[in-house]
Amino acid sequence: MNITRRAFTLASAAAVSSGAAAQDKPVRLAMLGTVGHPGEILGALPRAPRVRLTAVSEDQPAIRARLSRNRAMEGARIYASAEELLAKEEFDIAAVCNDNGARAGVSLACLRRGIPVIAEKPLALTLGDLASLRAEVEQRGRKLTSLLKMRTDPWFLAIRRCVERGELGEVVQVSAQKSYKAMGAGDWRTQAESFGGTLPWIGIDLIDLMRWTSGREFTEVATLQNRIGFEAIGPVDNSVASLFRLDNGGMATLRIDYLRTPGAPTHGDDRLRVAGTEGIAEYTAATGVTLQRRGQAPVQVKELPEERSLFLEFLAHVEGGPAPIAYPDLFRSVEIALKAWESGKGGGLKPVRL
Amino acid sequence: MNITRRAFTLASAAAVSSGAAAQDKPVRLAMLGTVGHPGEILGALPRAPRVRLTAVSEDQPAIRARLSRNRAMEGARIYASAEELLAKEEFDIAAVCNDNGARAGVSLACLRRGIPVIAEKPLALTLGDLASLRAEVEQRGRKLTSLLKMRTDPWFLAIRRCVERGELGEVVQVSAQKSYKAMGAGDWRTQAESFGGTLPWIGIDLIDLMRWTSGREFTEVATLQNRIGFEAIGPVDNSVASLFRLDNGGMATLRIDYLRTPGAPTHGDDRLRVAGTEGIAEYTAATGVTLQRRGQAPVQVKELPEERSLFLEFLAHVEGGPAPIAYPDLFRSVEIALKAWESGKGGGLKPVRL
Repeated sequence: MNITRRAFTLASAAAVSSGAAAQDKPVRLAMLGTVGHPGEILGALPRAPRVRLTAVSEDQPAIRARLSRNRAMEGARIYASAEELLAKEEFDIAAVCNDNGARAGVSLACLRRGIPVIAEKPLALTLGDLASLRAEVEQRGRKLTSLLKMRTDPWFLAIRRCVERGELGEVVQVSAQKSYKAMGAGDWRTQAESFGGTLPWIGIDLIDLMRWTSGREFTEVATLQNRIGFEAIGPVDNSVASLFRLDNGGMATLRIDYLRTPGAPTHGDDRLRVAGTEGIAEYTAATGVTLQRRGQAPVQVKELPEERSLFLEFLAHVEGGPAPIAYPDLFRSVEIALKAWESGKGGGLKPVRL
Repeated sequence: MNITRRAFTLASAAAVSSGAAAQDKPVRLAMLGTVGHPGEILGALPRAPRVRLTAVSEDQPAIRARLSRNRAMEGARIYASAEELLAKEEFDIAAVCNDNGARAGVSLACLRRGIPVIAEKPLALTLGDLASLRAEVEQRGRKLTSLLKMRTDPWFLAIRRCVERGELGEVVQVSAQKSYKAMGAGDWRTQAESFGGTLPWIGIDLIDLMRWTSGREFTEVATLQNRIGFEAIGPVDNSVASLFRLDNGGMATLRIDYLRTPGAPTHGDDRLRVAGTEGIAEYTAATGVTLQRRGQAPVQVKELPEERSLFLEFLAHVEGGPAPIAYPDLFRSVEIALKAWESGKGGGLKPVRL
């Protein structure tokens, strides 16, 4: 990971995407699938005036029926499958927002046509599919990124900035949590084929976030994962915990649950804590971002970095700017998530080298 | 663990220890060592009017020099070693507050004389010493407990009460944290022989707390532990994380660090989170005890149970009451802490069955 690279801000990315040199050329965007976080794309469109959403596919009829009421999709042609869209449309950029199981296949089809892809996370559910995507990027120069949206959040950007400035010294211990409300029966995330697993679906966010904020690499993992109660969510693990060894002998813990109660004020309860030899930076909803530094009184960090937009930064990347997520880093986070998931299958503790 | 046994309250324990039946017989207390948490004993003496602190030993001259200024020790004979005290004194109860390395030996010497022992934690640094202590209790009926003082804290008593009342359903995920300020150079806790390790010294508090509040048993563990930076603290691991498998397929994470900065408002930042199929109970300093229950809005728990005193409850146990910490449970927590510590030696992830 290049911990010193300055994050592209919304403003600079938007400037590039609407730059004078190519201002007159519209950029045709196709959205293949509309589940997960399509809002990351649709919400950024007003700030990307050259981009036109020209085509959308959605294979679930119930979801497709709602698309016509979405004003952000006005004027886009709607298809019942990604295959049909790919056969009939020409476009310049693909947003791949289909289910986890179908994602790698559609992303590959786009990349092989030479079309840059911004995809939901995880990029793939198998190491083989991940290798195929990587080959397109590394051997054929295709452009790809993934909606690891925790990287765009001011809370976590602030913690990364503490590490970059050296305010925590050498990072020794990292920990992160996601606690979510369980999905309803019938949701695409309750079917094994379309969902995959809890660790690749939301665990990758935390794995990537812990690596990216700390600047440390993970070298070994053991995971425990299970579903207890909640028969309606089928094969979804409602509790996951992983222990990672860091490259400097430190350690990271990840915990995920789908046990947040329906009456809780938000869908999720995300947390991050990064502890080093000179200080500790942490985010929780109750405290905001706090920073303890040796020789100083603990403080709440009130000046937060500007929120990023992976979509706008990806547009700038397509036009020659840096990748919003450095490629080795992007593929590595997916690889670790898939290996951490694998290590948790079977019930007992089975450490895996990373 | 007997999750339904009602905790003895301070009031009821004090009543037994000063009960009419034995009111005229003084109880001679010897304190062997004065490090760790002797305040748990000394602070309770005003509520145990029959108990007289008659003898104290402390083998560190610098600490011994300060004892004469401690009003709670007024009238007690002071010895420079536990051996000398044991050779010269007759007493009825022993408080063993010496260093971790010497603890099991002195505790055994007392138990073999038929004297009940309330000892600091951990009871032993090896499984062999633990087995010797256990044999005294189980084969010879000796009485023993340990200062696992997190069990006495109203915050954690409140969380245990949530589990006992069924408010969380089946517990699926447990996690606990201790973050401490590092000790100074020269402290007894910076010498391997007297300290042992971070996991047996403070990890046992969290292991016992997680088992005791959740009512679940641990069946497997992997630990990572290390010291990074902080040369002055010698062999002390300043970062530890363990992943435990629960008997129902759930999981627990423990994290400990000695990275809390000197300017932080308290020495420690203790936390506990217990998540189940019907709700989540949690303590942090920032939030107090919070409780989410299915079908209800989340609340802060304001009515907390009364604080307990392990010393007063142990006095009542000596006079025929129940043990303050049930024996199988007490020995099991020490066993798990020692095995979790062992599993972390060598650097890599080495799962151990519990």
